[in-house]
Amino acid sequence: MTNERKTILIIGLGLMGGSYAMALKRKGHTVNCITLSQTSIDYALSQGIIDRGTTEIDEELIHSCDIAVFALYPHVFTEWIERYGSKFKEGAVITDVTGVKGEIVEKIQSMLPEGVEFIAAHPMAGRESSGVENADDRVFKNANYIVVPTEKNTEKAIKICEWLGRELGFERISRLSVDEHDKMIAFLSQLTHCIAVSLMCASDDENIYKYTGDSFRDLTRIAKINETMWCELFSLNKANLLAEIDAFSEQLQRLRNAIGSDDGETVKDMMRRSTLRRGYFDKERGV
Amino acid sequence: MTNERKTILIIGLGLMGGSYAMALKRKGHTVNCITLSQTSIDYALSQGIIDRGTTEIDEELIHSCDIAVFALYPHVFTEWIERYGSKFKEGAVITDVTGVKGEIVEKIQSMLPEGVEFIAAHPMAGRESSGVENADDRVFKNANYIVVPTEKNTEKAIKICEWLGRELGFERISRLSVDEHDKMIAFLSQLTHCIAVSLMCASDDENIYKYTGDSFRDLTRIAKINETMWCELFSLNKANLLAEIDAFSEQLQRLRNAIGSDDGETVKDMMRRSTLRRGYFDKERGV
Repeated sequence: MTNERKTILIIGLGLMGGSYAMALKRKGHTVNCITLSQTSIDYALSQGIIDRGTTEIDEELIHSCDIAVFALYPHVFTEWIERYGSKFKEGAVITDVTGVKGEIVEKIQSMLPEGVEFIAAHPMAGRESSGVENADDRVFKNANYIVVPTEKNTEKAIKICEWLGRELGFERISRLSVDEHDKMIAFLSQLTHCIAVSLMCASDDENIYKYTGDSFRDLTRIAKINETMWCELFSLNKANLLAEIDAFSEQLQRLRNAIGSDDGETVKDMMRRSTLRRGYFDKERGV
Repeated sequence: MTNERKTILIIGLGLMGGSYAMALKRKGHTVNCITLSQTSIDYALSQGIIDRGTTEIDEELIHSCDIAVFALYPHVFTEWIERYGSKFKEGAVITDVTGVKGEIVEKIQSMLPEGVEFIAAHPMAGRESSGVENADDRVFKNANYIVVPTEKNTEKAIKICEWLGRELGFERISRLSVDEHDKMIAFLSQLTHCIAVSLMCASDDENIYKYTGDSFRDLTRIAKINETMWCELFSLNKANLLAEIDAFSEQLQRLRNAIGSDDGETVKDMMRRSTLRRGYFDKERGV
């Protein structure tokens, strides 16, 4: 990709859309946005992280963009494209931050006009807080960015999407197919959120904060969760997620039964395996 | 407690014993140690975090201490007291860092001579690494310290133990009974370690580091685990731990079944509850 200045339209200026805007403005691109809340636009303008913003369907803003980034709830994203997808100019590249791809990508691709290409991406970065006021492009540093092409994507659009990941400051950019992505994300992200939520639901003791160590704090950080978005993401990836919950539960039961029957060798064997795998993981990531 | 300079003996100079030594030397106390490895002693002397150290059972070191801190595997701790507990001077206060209390505290108290008091404590701080070379007393900052008295303890010894927690730099010092402690720790610490180990055992994909976000990293940080120590701690607190694994599994199954049957209201209800509880938790801790 060239170093040329692009015009980038962000649709949905929350935590993630705002963090994209911040990173891309810093790189000298023109960043416009369409979002529901005028307060978010006013804040973003005051911080200098967007050039223009509107709560309306501004055809000129839509038509002028080289790249559009959708940071919306999945069903809002597909509805938006259905209604306004024809307004992008030929050659525009559309991408997203949606956490599930299977139910989304083909639908979006089939709705866009000839010459407008959707290439899906998943930035593996975030925070427990929400809203553009909490946007922070430092979350992309040391983080992973997954490009999720289909057979319909051109190598050119895939390269633009990878370039965007680099412009945002991600450390590692990878490609996965839609199926690989959704299975991976069921394990790495959705299962971990299910565990955190279940763990907080397992105790109503209000005094636990007095006694806890870092391990419990770490495991439940993500228990503060946007229930509307995550419920939708879980539903869209149901089969994969149920399979991962079951695979995890099987291992937990195995460990439970080994503890219960004083089978120290199985307990230690599982601990050695987890130590080895987690160590490999740290080494590769350099943390 | 007074500000007087104490002579403190640390038995077991690993990560935790070393971090205690570092904090207590910084406060001007005399810190001696008995530990298995001369290399650990040489390192600690070179760093100025102990005054004297030996790999022998040095009766003068044992007899001279005002406070002794045991940072050993539970069964090594009880064996040590059985063999050498009579060598402490009258008025000495013994404490520990052991992660389980039920099988330990009464046994230790019953073995010590008249005038030597054992008051149990659990510092809720640690690291995934081990050894005195990784000792760092900054882990006590913002952390919890639990004092675990029994009916046999005097208020004087409890106060000394609480004073020790403050000298070490802990943010919050609480008291729990042995039963309360072991139940609390089964939930807050042992269950979370079982979850992390099971999660790492649930996938043998060596490429996951390329795609993961912070949530998976946070949930598995503690999957690097000393299998000898944790297997012993799990076994000593078996009944409580199995009950907590079961309570957690019940919530996870509830969430799983709600996702599986498209019962969005239950999914969202659990997420709202977890968000509320985790938020309360953060607020109280000020993080």
